[in-house]
Amino acid sequence: MRALVFDGELHLREEYPQPVPGPHEALVRVLLAGICNTDLEIIRGYMGFRGVLGHEFVGVVEAADDSAWVGRRVVGEINCACGECPTCRAGRPTHCPQRVTIGIAGHDGALADYLLVPLSNLHVVPDSIPDRQAVFTEPLAAALEVLEQVHIRPSERVIVVGDGKLGLLVAQVLMLTGCDLLVIGRHQEKLSLLARRGIATQGADEPARVGADVVVDCTGRAEGFALARQLVRPRGRLVLKSTFHGDNQINLTSLVVDEVTLVGSRCGPFAPALRLLEQGLVEVEALIDSEYPLAEGAAALARAGTRGALKVLVRP
Amino acid sequence: MRALVFDGELHLREEYPQPVPGPHEALVRVLLAGICNTDLEIIRGYMGFRGVLGHEFVGVVEAADDSAWVGRRVVGEINCACGECPTCRAGRPTHCPQRVTIGIAGHDGALADYLLVPLSNLHVVPDSIPDRQAVFTEPLAAALEVLEQVHIRPSERVIVVGDGKLGLLVAQVLMLTGCDLLVIGRHQEKLSLLARRGIATQGADEPARVGADVVVDCTGRAEGFALARQLVRPRGRLVLKSTFHGDNQINLTSLVVDEVTLVGSRCGPFAPALRLLEQGLVEVEALIDSEYPLAEGAAALARAGTRGALKVLVRP
Repeated sequence: MRALVFDGELHLREEYPQPVPGPHEALVRVLLAGICNTDLEIIRGYMGFRGVLGHEFVGVVEAADDSAWVGRRVVGEINCACGECPTCRAGRPTHCPQRVTIGIAGHDGALADYLLVPLSNLHVVPDSIPDRQAVFTEPLAAALEVLEQVHIRPSERVIVVGDGKLGLLVAQVLMLTGCDLLVIGRHQEKLSLLARRGIATQGADEPARVGADVVVDCTGRAEGFALARQLVRPRGRLVLKSTFHGDNQINLTSLVVDEVTLVGSRCGPFAPALRLLEQGLVEVEALIDSEYPLAEGAAALARAGTRGALKVLVRP
Repeated sequence: MRALVFDGELHLREEYPQPVPGPHEALVRVLLAGICNTDLEIIRGYMGFRGVLGHEFVGVVEAADDSAWVGRRVVGEINCACGECPTCRAGRPTHCPQRVTIGIAGHDGALADYLLVPLSNLHVVPDSIPDRQAVFTEPLAAALEVLEQVHIRPSERVIVVGDGKLGLLVAQVLMLTGCDLLVIGRHQEKLSLLARRGIATQGADEPARVGADVVVDCTGRAEGFALARQLVRPRGRLVLKSTFHGDNQINLTSLVVDEVTLVGSRCGPFAPALRLLEQGLVEVEALIDSEYPLAEGAAALARAGTRGALKVLVRP
């Protein structure tokens, strides 16, 4: 099969071995995959990953020992947990220390004709959700993780810093809480996507009102974090929704003095993401930048890496 | 002016004295008012209230010592607090022990040509929200109070018991959390309003799956509470979103054994309610049963009291 492989360099392999599902595992034929900033970071060395890239996908189950799954259109959670360790038994499988992560750590990903996914990671996609929306389930779930972790009250003032792909999803799910929401970003055309939905936005260089109850940093950049830190009120909550390159200079004492709660936030729940897509409550197709055939996967990654690019999709 | 007055009996008074605003108070000309179940309970003796009924309204400020308010279209919070006691200073004015409540306790209400509202209770209605939506701000705020008080995670299973006017609003704001939501009710035509929005519903006589993380009782009836209690899981949260006639038999020991949290919930925040209406995220006009002129106010109350009636509006 064809696969976009990273082995220190990026290659489209035409004859990559097609995987064979083991027990409780599905062979999924990829219908559509998405490129995430994490994929771009992997190419720069993040996680030391070697293998097939890609962890956002919608596909069809071609083979599985449980035949009820065969033929179903699915999305898949990306953390493959052992299911038996104390962390898994405590209900936190996405933190299993033995886990592998599809397309990120120890498990081939979705920028290929096929991939393997544990059956317990699969979610059936309702018929009413087209592929170009379903492929957003994984990042939308990550956006919803903010609401899993933090109680955002309708009366609270919330700021999202960053108008990248994840920031635009986080903003849309936060809007649904009724909170007083502001999104700060650097790209007028992205901010206007939100403004069309009635979300207040402003440029990163405009002075912002400090004292927000909750600030979500979706920039993955030191200056984004610094701005987010500056905007949150004493006793407020500062959510870190993206990974950073290397170490960051943080004034821990100021966090103590201001009693700020810092919340790291990663993967989230798929079922509510599918519910919001089914009910049409989050607009994802407007976030599509472009679609490439798998044969042009390297060009797709290059496009995803250009400044201001929205979601680049890859179709096998 | 005309006013619908309750003095032990209900009268439409044609020559009720028009109120005169004091300092920091607005004279509001009522454009449209709504009838709430609380109004029906007042007629049955609840709160021992005597005066003009009605606490859901949208109107125009006709006079106020701060001229910036004059001519503005407004809705108004109903709890008039002293602003100076420890409860008010602690940021809980809706619990001020000196408070009066518009149309419910010690303050004439909105089923009249005019009413008085403290300026600090007013919220300007955005132009894009028509009167027939704005009149729902107060009950929608009450629905949002559930989300102020309880952290509902997107992955949680939530049941609303009751498909009355408030239940339909509570269900709609809970849907926006992405949670796995079920509404249990007795009126097929009301449940179908929710089903159209993609919300799962079932009849009160069908067996329901127990073990919900959160159950919101919007029935105001002992049997509704009993069902809600039965459906919530150990360590779950049971929200009481309506008032009950008289005392109720409750097995407190079972709450202790199951470590259930019981949360009483009343008035909520207006600003997020207006935001959700402005963004079109809650459908309220479909909840309108009928509209009566003020001259037929008694008939409007009678209609509101018929089984299964939705929101009855009164236009002066």
